[in-house]
Amino acid sequence: MAQVMRAAVLPEPGKPLIIKEVAVPEPGPTQMLIKVLYASVNHRDVWIQKGLYPGIRRGVILGSDCVGIVEKVGSEVDSAWVGKKVIVNPGLEWGPSREVQSPSFHILGNPTDGTFAEYVVVPAENVYQPPLHLSDEEAAVLPLAGVTAYRALFYRGRPQQGNTILITGIGGGVALMALKMATTITDKIIVTSSSLQKIDRALELGATDGYLYTHDDWHKKIIQKWGGVDVVIDGASGPNIPQIIDILNPGGRLVIYGQTAGKIPQLSTAKVFWRHLNILGSTMGSPSDFEEMLELWNAHKLKPVIDRLYSLDEINEAFEWMDNAKQFGKIIIKI
Amino acid sequence: MAQVMRAAVLPEPGKPLIIKEVAVPEPGPTQMLIKVLYASVNHRDVWIQKGLYPGIRRGVILGSDCVGIVEKVGSEVDSAWVGKKVIVNPGLEWGPSREVQSPSFHILGNPTDGTFAEYVVVPAENVYQPPLHLSDEEAAVLPLAGVTAYRALFYRGRPQQGNTILITGIGGGVALMALKMATTITDKIIVTSSSLQKIDRALELGATDGYLYTHDDWHKKIIQKWGGVDVVIDGASGPNIPQIIDILNPGGRLVIYGQTAGKIPQLSTAKVFWRHLNILGSTMGSPSDFEEMLELWNAHKLKPVIDRLYSLDEINEAFEWMDNAKQFGKIIIKI
Repeated sequence: MAQVMRAAVLPEPGKPLIIKEVAVPEPGPTQMLIKVLYASVNHRDVWIQKGLYPGIRRGVILGSDCVGIVEKVGSEVDSAWVGKKVIVNPGLEWGPSREVQSPSFHILGNPTDGTFAEYVVVPAENVYQPPLHLSDEEAAVLPLAGVTAYRALFYRGRPQQGNTILITGIGGGVALMALKMATTITDKIIVTSSSLQKIDRALELGATDGYLYTHDDWHKKIIQKWGGVDVVIDGASGPNIPQIIDILNPGGRLVIYGQTAGKIPQLSTAKVFWRHLNILGSTMGSPSDFEEMLELWNAHKLKPVIDRLYSLDEINEAFEWMDNAKQFGKIIIKI
Repeated sequence: MAQVMRAAVLPEPGKPLIIKEVAVPEPGPTQMLIKVLYASVNHRDVWIQKGLYPGIRRGVILGSDCVGIVEKVGSEVDSAWVGKKVIVNPGLEWGPSREVQSPSFHILGNPTDGTFAEYVVVPAENVYQPPLHLSDEEAAVLPLAGVTAYRALFYRGRPQQGNTILITGIGGGVALMALKMATTITDKIIVTSSSLQKIDRALELGATDGYLYTHDDWHKKIIQKWGGVDVVIDGASGPNIPQIIDILNPGGRLVIYGQTAGKIPQLSTAKVFWRHLNILGSTMGSPSDFEEMLELWNAHKLKPVIDRLYSLDEINEAFEWMDNAKQFGKIIIKI
């Protein structure tokens, strides 16, 4: 095999990625070397590229998701894996507790070199068979957004069969993964967006109802039509949180996995304690979350929502597309 | 028995209570008539008296807590109860779900007539034997503050053995109940107050460490000494919530049961999702919470903290004392 490979390298935070030749990495005893077929872009990649993330390593190869072929395994890894098609859990060293990650937890693609390259080295324990009903392109988009959405929705949100679930900011990778997975447990899925077009597409994909959160009375309309909601999956935080608390049913769970809309404004907690509400933070996911996520996609033959495909050479265009929030679904990088 | 009784009646919201003679109520088929020996005052009583509560009934007899003797039972109730000393769960019609109260849930003492009277009628299912190791005065203060603290600490906060627990605003009834109960599961209990004297008394009662939340760096001191905290029991909400979120350990649980310090200021959620934090509302408690609370007090022979005793005639003085936040522990009313 080759000694060098093409990779998308971040020269320094804030600068565009550079495609250049670097040495093919060597797997350690418990690792695998994977020949990447497809990768996909996450918001995390864009934030790192822009310098909006802690602990950025200059010269890092970004990218958390991939589907690939095992090229070579370390001395302690079963050689039967060689030649197999695999998907990778990008969460490294989560640790023993499902509840929280260990201090050494990190994600493939910074500071470790990631998947926007012809080859990537990963721990053997992070490698799984991709769902058989998915194409390589489709499977490549699952890992980070899929595990984040699975944990937020099922491990943290704990919806009951038939619950009313609200997913805010539909169009993003995690929100659409949550939508797909929510269809396995309820037929009452409400979405919000700032775009009618995105709401219409979500309705085609299994959402039951949708609202423009840019309209002042969106939450009142939800109360009028649905009474209230049981579980909310939100990656925005920001000014809409008080309205979300207003529409939560008693005992309801608001799971927050991001802050794209900024801080929460001044907040009364009276409804939070009277209604025994739960405001729950969630990020990424544990190995168990990843495994259960794969099982769910297999069991229900779920298909992810794909926005578009770029080549590795077009990776900066792909980042720009995501940064402008124009995408609806996941962006694939063909390596 | 007498046809009339002395009772503390609220003529209208905002007015002082009036002690007057009213008819002794008659128990319905599934109810009991209880001769009240001791009652105790809760913040709820004061808020109702001041008109700061929804659904106040003019002429209501306030009071949620009591110890008394069963005087008479309804036709469907076992007459063996007559003459027994009892304690009353003041939560009426909680409903079938432990997670949340039913829409018909209400608390003894408004709109139903309460315990600041010589007699009170309650549902037979709300009546229990008081803990044998407690005097009548001590048992009388348990119900509402005890069930609120039990649910907040154990059902919502779910501390593990040896966890670090922070109880804010020590001195109030619920906070001191939580302190007493927390000693059964950990020896790392931190309290906060605006009064050094209250902190000192809490340290005598089993708290491990205490801080003045009126000092700007109270939360930094807790991080320096304790690393962080696992469970927070807070009845204040208000401006200290961001500091509380700062000191929560990963996976930590902030249980909020009140809003005496007002709204939460603008809040970043980054720590909430990175650390998988839980912000959990809690109020009152279910029948299961009440029963488990009694079991815990029995098993550990816990003693409540008593502030002082007033007669029924002094009830407005008792309310004023509580309203000025001068008390440390529960205020008893001798009927």
